[in-house]
Amino acid sequence: MAIHVQPASIENLRELAIQCAREAGKLSLLRMSQPYTVEYKTSASDLVTAVDKEVEKRVIEMILAKYPEHGVLGEESTFQGDPHQFETLWIIDPIDGTTNFVHQQINFSVSIAVYQKGQGVIGVVYDPSRDELFYAVKGEGAYLNGRKLKLDRQVKLEEALLCTSVFWNKRAEQIGIDRIVKQLAGKVRGMRLLGSAALELSYVAAGRLDGYVSMSLNAWDFAAGRLIVEEAGGIVTKINGQPLPYDEKSSIMACNQAFYEELKHYLRKSEGLNFN
Amino acid sequence: MAIHVQPASIENLRELAIQCAREAGKLSLLRMSQPYTVEYKTSASDLVTAVDKEVEKRVIEMILAKYPEHGVLGEESTFQGDPHQFETLWIIDPIDGTTNFVHQQINFSVSIAVYQKGQGVIGVVYDPSRDELFYAVKGEGAYLNGRKLKLDRQVKLEEALLCTSVFWNKRAEQIGIDRIVKQLAGKVRGMRLLGSAALELSYVAAGRLDGYVSMSLNAWDFAAGRLIVEEAGGIVTKINGQPLPYDEKSSIMACNQAFYEELKHYLRKSEGLNFN
Repeated sequence: MAIHVQPASIENLRELAIQCAREAGKLSLLRMSQPYTVEYKTSASDLVTAVDKEVEKRVIEMILAKYPEHGVLGEESTFQGDPHQFETLWIIDPIDGTTNFVHQQINFSVSIAVYQKGQGVIGVVYDPSRDELFYAVKGEGAYLNGRKLKLDRQVKLEEALLCTSVFWNKRAEQIGIDRIVKQLAGKVRGMRLLGSAALELSYVAAGRLDGYVSMSLNAWDFAAGRLIVEEAGGIVTKINGQPLPYDEKSSIMACNQAFYEELKHYLRKSEGLNFN
Repeated sequence: MAIHVQPASIENLRELAIQCAREAGKLSLLRMSQPYTVEYKTSASDLVTAVDKEVEKRVIEMILAKYPEHGVLGEESTFQGDPHQFETLWIIDPIDGTTNFVHQQINFSVSIAVYQKGQGVIGVVYDPSRDELFYAVKGEGAYLNGRKLKLDRQVKLEEALLCTSVFWNKRAEQIGIDRIVKQLAGKVRGMRLLGSAALELSYVAAGRLDGYVSMSLNAWDFAAGRLIVEEAGGIVTKINGQPLPYDEKSSIMACNQAFYEELKHYLRKSEGLNFN
């Protein structure tokens, strides 16, 4: 009997990415609701690593069951193999915001992205605690629980609500960008810091935050959120304005395009200081 | 016919405070769901002021309908009269986190507190976007949606998730406390900034955040949240360790008692610099 391989159409990929995100969210909530099994775990961080790995394995199983020829790049690295050898690469973070997962049981998310030849085609971020599903398909827009997201509000930088962690980042301090962000903080309407990059990027796409700045995110932190912001009409680049890579650590700025140039101008004051 | 005045038992006060919080939350969500009436409002801040005032008026009506002899202290000051002349004083903020209300439509809250002769007896904080109701009765504990909150986890400062806005506060900069908090940020597990003091205090009570530090909050920002933290087993004082006032602006630190002394020690480095 021949193996029935489902064609990897964009629609099929999107459906599977959404299924994976919902399944991962459900599993995280379930594990959270169970009493910590302190008998064999020494700390909360051990526990979360165990849940992270379990959820990542589950997502990888779901992907490979349908598309055994696809590759997976994930935080917990439970997938064996060089991700660059695959034409279609899933970039996943089963629990983005693990500190929030442990401390808050809210404000964490699942991030699932599909890249083909280095180009993002699907991005899904799911917040299980609010049951909010953000997703985007390249060229087809971004959505929050089925509602189309469109960043068409002409926000001025002075009216913007920005999100960043660079104040507390050692690398930011080394290159002096913390002082620049502090100056910026005095200019904008407010600053927020939620602690899940994937969720924060999705909030930029939804207009809940107007901009996001971070120093050194991993590929799985921004792979999905970046596409969601872009498809909502926002701009995402490195802090120095260069294109974001898809498979390596990078700085990131994501915002409403109305003040992208102005924000970049601010951050550029630290250019030449060799950050990425 | 005699007027039937319901006695102001603690139980009756608690029930009314909860009713007021739920009604205020419902009204805020309703106004938010209606398209902005830009014809007669010039900006989002005008709109939110209008909603704030409307919700405050509604809450004051509900209070005075049952207890015409009570006083009300609120952000929008729609109640006429000197709050200090009343033995029982309601201290209310109908929308705490107005910037979040406008930008995010989440992470804002309703704060309702009842003080008798300057002592907090009831504190209610309601987050309508998550339908989460935090409340406390003096001497009877703190609750989140009916579940008792108990801060009995022995959190070390190194493991703590702290919440503060002092980085971006001009006054903090003037007295140098921003540098102290920055040093502290390098020591703890993480920093968060949500933008609604009442909600952030409630999250401390629920163990979602381990500590909260702010420079100059108004009485209505902390009146309810403070009682919720205390009844959950946490400690709330001014940054210099002195008791918090109930009816005027103050700095505030609220945290798990496991590291209160250590946190105060950090913040005390700026003592003598004349802040409150």
